[in-house]
Amino acid sequence: MNHLPSWNDGPSKDAILDFVARVSHGDSPDFVPVSERIACFDNDGTLWCEFPMQTQVFFAFAQLANIVEKSPDLKEKQPYKAFLEHDTATIHALGKKAVFEFAFATHAGMTVDEFADIARSWFETARNPKLDRLFVKCVYQPQVELLALLRENGFKTFIVSGGGIDLIRAFAELAYGIPPEQVVGSSVKTAFEAAGKLVSLRKLAELRSFDDREEKVVNIGLHIGRRPIFVFGNSDGDLAMMRYALAGQGPRLAMLVHHDDAEREFAYDRDFKLSPLTEALDNAAAYGIRVVSMARDRKEVFVA
Amino acid sequence: MNHLPSWNDGPSKDAILDFVARVSHGDSPDFVPVSERIACFDNDGTLWCEFPMQTQVFFAFAQLANIVEKSPDLKEKQPYKAFLEHDTATIHALGKKAVFEFAFATHAGMTVDEFADIARSWFETARNPKLDRLFVKCVYQPQVELLALLRENGFKTFIVSGGGIDLIRAFAELAYGIPPEQVVGSSVKTAFEAAGKLVSLRKLAELRSFDDREEKVVNIGLHIGRRPIFVFGNSDGDLAMMRYALAGQGPRLAMLVHHDDAEREFAYDRDFKLSPLTEALDNAAAYGIRVVSMARDRKEVFVA
Ligand SMILES: [Ca+2]
Ligand SMILES: [Ca+2]
Repeated sequence: MNHLPSWNDGPSKDAILDFVARVSHGDSPDFVPVSERIACFDNDGTLWCEFPMQTQVFFAFAQLANIVEKSPDLKEKQPYKAFLEHDTATIHALGKKAVFEFAFATHAGMTVDEFADIARSWFETARNPKLDRLFVKCVYQPQVELLALLRENGFKTFIVSGGGIDLIRAFAELAYGIPPEQVVGSSVKTAFEAAGKLVSLRKLAELRSFDDREEKVVNIGLHIGRRPIFVFGNSDGDLAMMRYALAGQGPRLAMLVHHDDAEREFAYDRDFKLSPLTEALDNAAAYGIRVVSMARDRKEVFVA
Repeated sequence: MNHLPSWNDGPSKDAILDFVARVSHGDSPDFVPVSERIACFDNDGTLWCEFPMQTQVFFAFAQLANIVEKSPDLKEKQPYKAFLEHDTATIHALGKKAVFEFAFATHAGMTVDEFADIARSWFETARNPKLDRLFVKCVYQPQVELLALLRENGFKTFIVSGGGIDLIRAFAELAYGIPPEQVVGSSVKTAFEAAGKLVSLRKLAELRSFDDREEKVVNIGLHIGRRPIFVFGNSDGDLAMMRYALAGQGPRLAMLVHHDDAEREFAYDRDFKLSPLTEALDNAAAYGIRVVSMARDRKEVFVA
């Protein structure tokens, strides 16, 4: 059986197949019980495309159009203006946390059920403008195969993302086979609300957790409660959780995808303000992190 | 096949078997897809005994002995003194949140891995003094059977408890078959810590979430991201999540265990300061909550 058909043969594919075999074969000295086979994946740039901006930002554009319709005076205020004009340079300059926090605040006042409906119908038609593909088709085929391979071998697969937990939950089960309860992400505070038979959670404007860097590990502790043995990321935001995984006892694998394929996708790393890759790339070898090349290691890029 | 052998025949058992059949048979008009079969169980008093105090409090007694050995001047201070003397009346008077917050703070400074080791070895010998049973044997046999029945029928079973998430995770997989990532509970903040090859999460003294009442629903939203269709609790602390479940579309079941069996276990409700049952009991019928009687509905009480 040809595992990982969309991966080119080479050391990255070998490392994955070797790791999976070592931890899952009962007679292997590196055998890991099924319950400990926890795999954590970053989402933006690791499982799907994040260029020129994360999908969360495009989703905020759509939400803002509704907001300024009700409050037109916001149109000239920043960062509303930059978001409304899709002004990439200004948005990039704000940095990841400020951009995401602003994006999350555009959903304040909705119940989580209302949000899920809005997100699901947005995903039906919303497209990445650079790739001219539906966002849900900007998912990487090699990673979908990897997630399936891990699950076939007893792994439980989680997303641990800086993106908003509710937006990811709106598509992750269909796109990746990852159910809502295995999605860890940034989140805003919510309020319980009960009025007769209507009982719901309402999203507030206040950030609860920005799930990036060290906070990814904090949230793995909160949501998963076990140290992952496999981690896949693509930026400095994933370095802490890679180190956390690698520091555990027994076999471990941490992989870092490097976007170096300007022809089939995009080539970027240090200068991508919305999620730079610098420290993790420079110190990958020292930390024991394997770098995966988009150009070299992948036969296919996107899902069909 | 005899499902739920430790449940007496009667309306409670019938309601469970009927609900499970309705949601899981493909040709039933009430069929629910497997992915939506989310069941949430309170822990203390619902899955295991919480009398005369929750296990979390007894665990804090053991931790405090270590703390006052290092800082003897704490011995005469409250609430240290009450905890050290197992002074039930004073502890009850503090109320659930204050007691738990104090208990959680006794673990500050440990890594989550150290905590897990300490908790696991404590559980090997620690006993409920009133029942003279190991705490891990104060688990209710009828509920273990119910959890298994639900899982056999495609449900994913979660704990949603006011108890500390890390203490529950130290025994829940063995006792209930519920893995750490399906445990939702109260928690303290943690800090990421990296020193060379040692990378860990350290528990802080500050509360992150006290998972009781409305906060249970907030944390279901955070950890699970779906509205449960089945909820089982035993106190007013579970009323919000019962109402949340019942307010969803389609078939729902919310059950409330009433501790009315002074002979085989304990009889308590309104006056149990550490987790009173008043509002949920008085309004069960109005909310559509089914009351389960320990005395009437259970053939067996504890696991063997
Ligand atoms: Ca990323
Ligand atoms: Ca309880």
